[in-house]
Amino acid sequence: MRIGLIGFGKTGKAVASVILQSESFELKWILRRKKLLDHRSAAEVLGIETSSTEGLIYSTSNTNLENLMDTLPVDVIIDFSSGQGIYTYGELAAKRKIKIISAISHYKPKEVAFLHKLAQQTTVFWSPNITLGVNYLMISAKFLKKIAPWVDIEIVEEHFKGKDGISGTALKIAEVLDMDKAKINSIRAGGIVGRHEIIFGFPYQTVRLIHESISREAFGNGVLFVAENLKDKEDGFYNFQDLLLPYFYD
Amino acid sequence: MRIGLIGFGKTGKAVASVILQSESFELKWILRRKKLLDHRSAAEVLGIETSSTEGLIYSTSNTNLENLMDTLPVDVIIDFSSGQGIYTYGELAAKRKIKIISAISHYKPKEVAFLHKLAQQTTVFWSPNITLGVNYLMISAKFLKKIAPWVDIEIVEEHFKGKDGISGTALKIAEVLDMDKAKINSIRAGGIVGRHEIIFGFPYQTVRLIHESISREAFGNGVLFVAENLKDKEDGFYNFQDLLLPYFYD
Amino acid sequence: MRIGLIGFGKTGKAVASVILQSESFELKWILRRKKLLDHRSAAEVLGIETSSTEGLIYSTSNTNLENLMDTLPVDVIIDFSSGQGIYTYGELAAKRKIKIISAISHYKPKEVAFLHKLAQQTTVFWSPNITLGVNYLMISAKFLKKIAPWVDIEIVEEHFKGKDGISGTALKIAEVLDMDKAKINSIRAGGIVGRHEIIFGFPYQTVRLIHESISREAFGNGVLFVAENLKDKEDGFYNFQDLLLPYFYD
Amino acid sequence: MRIGLIGFGKTGKAVASVILQSESFELKWILRRKKLLDHRSAAEVLGIETSSTEGLIYSTSNTNLENLMDTLPVDVIIDFSSGQGIYTYGELAAKRKIKIISAISHYKPKEVAFLHKLAQQTTVFWSPNITLGVNYLMISAKFLKKIAPWVDIEIVEEHFKGKDGISGTALKIAEVLDMDKAKINSIRAGGIVGRHEIIFGFPYQTVRLIHESISREAFGNGVLFVAENLKDKEDGFYNFQDLLLPYFYD
Repeated sequence: MRIGLIGFGKTGKAVASVILQSESFELKWILRRKKLLDHRSAAEVLGIETSSTEGLIYSTSNTNLENLMDTLPVDVIIDFSSGQGIYTYGELAAKRKIKIISAISHYKPKEVAFLHKLAQQTTVFWSPNITLGVNYLMISAKFLKKIAPWVDIEIVEEHFKGKDGISGTALKIAEVLDMDKAKINSIRAGGIVGRHEIIFGFPYQTVRLIHESISREAFGNGVLFVAENLKDKEDGFYNFQDLLLPYFYD
Repeated sequence: MRIGLIGFGKTGKAVASVILQSESFELKWILRRKKLLDHRSAAEVLGIETSSTEGLIYSTSNTNLENLMDTLPVDVIIDFSSGQGIYTYGELAAKRKIKIISAISHYKPKEVAFLHKLAQQTTVFWSPNITLGVNYLMISAKFLKKIAPWVDIEIVEEHFKGKDGISGTALKIAEVLDMDKAKINSIRAGGIVGRHEIIFGFPYQTVRLIHESISREAFGNGVLFVAENLKDKEDGFYNFQDLLLPYFYD
Repeated sequence: MRIGLIGFGKTGKAVASVILQSESFELKWILRRKKLLDHRSAAEVLGIETSSTEGLIYSTSNTNLENLMDTLPVDVIIDFSSGQGIYTYGELAAKRKIKIISAISHYKPKEVAFLHKLAQQTTVFWSPNITLGVNYLMISAKFLKKIAPWVDIEIVEEHFKGKDGISGTALKIAEVLDMDKAKINSIRAGGIVGRHEIIFGFPYQTVRLIHESISREAFGNGVLFVAENLKDKEDGFYNFQDLLLPYFYD
Repeated sequence: MRIGLIGFGKTGKAVASVILQSESFELKWILRRKKLLDHRSAAEVLGIETSSTEGLIYSTSNTNLENLMDTLPVDVIIDFSSGQGIYTYGELAAKRKIKIISAISHYKPKEVAFLHKLAQQTTVFWSPNITLGVNYLMISAKFLKKIAPWVDIEIVEEHFKGKDGISGTALKIAEVLDMDKAKINSIRAGGIVGRHEIIFGFPYQTVRLIHESISREAFGNGVLFVAENLKDKEDGFYNFQDLLLPYFYD
């Protein structure tokens, strides 16, 4: 599968590095706002050895994206840029039936509507947290609540000192489980990368579902899982739950 | 729902105590091998206040079970006795369309076959571990393995000092996940009631599913969940997975 | 060592049961407010087999305590009664050089002052939480903070649904570590007996000190540890830290 | 404090990066075997902004170490090279009263003897694991065992898939606690950086001491702690316990 990546910040780099090391995916190009690193090889910049000479970095202002899409065609575009990135490539991609995978954390309603419009022409996927583990945890937790609607649920989320506010993932879990935000306990200490624990308190037993992040590269693996599972999907709008649920049907 | 309980050992007592405190279930009688406590009220023996005068204890040798079933009819029989218990009540119950819930840990093939034969006449359920949490964990873990078949899985089970051999529940989890027994790590220390942890190691993230037992009464809650979910089930043989899976279909 | 126990509520019973099963301690008598169970054997009431015929239960209103102390002399009195209990036996015990171990959670300043006064005549020990594990945790945590005063510390305390307010033990830990109460996260879910976790967040590593209560009997073991370690102590007032610190001096 | 660093492998780099970002330490030079990066600035190579122009990288074969020590004098030499590194700089450092901090995991007896010889002339410190957390855990665990010598202890160590053999740190913990190696449970899964848990099983309570590594930089912080605490120490041989114990004496 041929991939075009939008965004080359910290997470974009981590994702690029996972794609470059995967055998079933080819990173054809990277598009970013900054001109720094223009036309350099992503593999070289990231210190990864690859046989391929592809995967160059392009800056939006120096690049005719339509040209790029036609000379270096891709099957999927992966977006780790910003809430506005979708306007740069959205229509060009949809017209060419390139699938779109967006991992942008926060979209305004206008952008979400735009994604749905694009989904009439191509396959569009959006997930604000694109790690496999967290999405599995959310679905799995939802089922346990369905099984035992009366169970007491609390969330503990741990992150590095200085991270502001409640973690977006914890808020999402609370939303999925229809919980009061007051049941989210936020720990901020040292350099903890990210840890989410959902505690299910039964009268005589306790169930704990825990997700621990080790590094940003987890997003890369999530992306590859999504790309793989989107392969045979028709035009339309998908989220992570749509891709995971079929696995739950025995 | 009217219940007859077979067995009044440590676990039988804990289960009886949960049933007696539930509002939607009625404990009509208890059948046990020992003559001790014959014709005494279970509620009184266990120190539980109930309005009902029912729930007397009967010993197998002093009781005509057929008579008991006809004078104090029940909807479900719950079996926490022994591998042989089923022969005492099985046919009498099946003939009367009384549902059978067996929580016996170890049956020989002959007894399993007998259960299946009874299942042609009535609704029969068997689970060697009848806690809700452990059964949820097993199904949930199975799905994660389906989603990511290449993930590394290890099990840590912790129990009180002196518990012999690998825990049956851990072995069952390993079987369900098609894992090598060598991946089960057994901790024996102090008075730990029972803790099972399934670790899923991904390259850049870790998922942990944990079940902690607080006390034997957890079996009681499991029984009530099973009885509740068996209510509208037709004749046939069921296990815990059969009851939980419908909840996983969104 | 010969023991007299004051109080026979839920915790008092658990403590009595641990003492009765220990080989180096003898439970001579129990004093309680209620007349229920008067003059019955504690071992029998608790269903414990002992060779000794001692350990009868006495009620305060039916008993001349001075007489009891003289006919059935003890080395230590253990108090699991209430904030006022100390006035019943305090002076009688001090006069006879009987050591006093109080495990009362909350004393008013007046009672604390009274304990100190008694400590001029005999050995007096007081700890609001008398489990070995929690007290070890507090001292151990204090040292880590001394080693790394800049470390981020948070506390997570978990208890059964319905427990009111922040746990007294968590508050005590926060006090010992000179922490803001806002750093205590309270989880209330199902039947969790009691769990305290102190998280030390360093920039590139995390240390977690965890205490899990299994049952009330933990207080019994704490009492025996205290009694054992108080054996050769002179008159004076002691707390748990006084007994544990010598072990920390290598 | 002025520092010279020996070794610039993965861990050496992480340690250099922590020193460069600390305000109370100055990284004067780095000595390594490879000629790659010769005379380049460590800060620049590691992408760290510093005001200082110091901290150049030197290769052993291109460098006269005696000259280097005299033109760019340091107070402490930190060794993250290999078992043989000590012979390169040991005597030159000792003669100049430069303190030596070695973090080499495995020394043969000959090298340990050499360190002790050097310790007659200067302050020498050696610890095979130089993270603060792990060393704290070991001392703290030792005390708990002293307090309750009869407690059941088990170790669980978790590391990334493919790590060979039992972790050296777990073996060291087992040695310090005088435990049978069979009580070490090794988990190998995914990308777990490193996690050590010591479980103390009491009859009615459980204590868990846990250390989680986030990244190699933890060694850097350990080094700075050691350097700081070695400042006023006289000539002689020290290990981590020597530096931590004074904090345990209240």
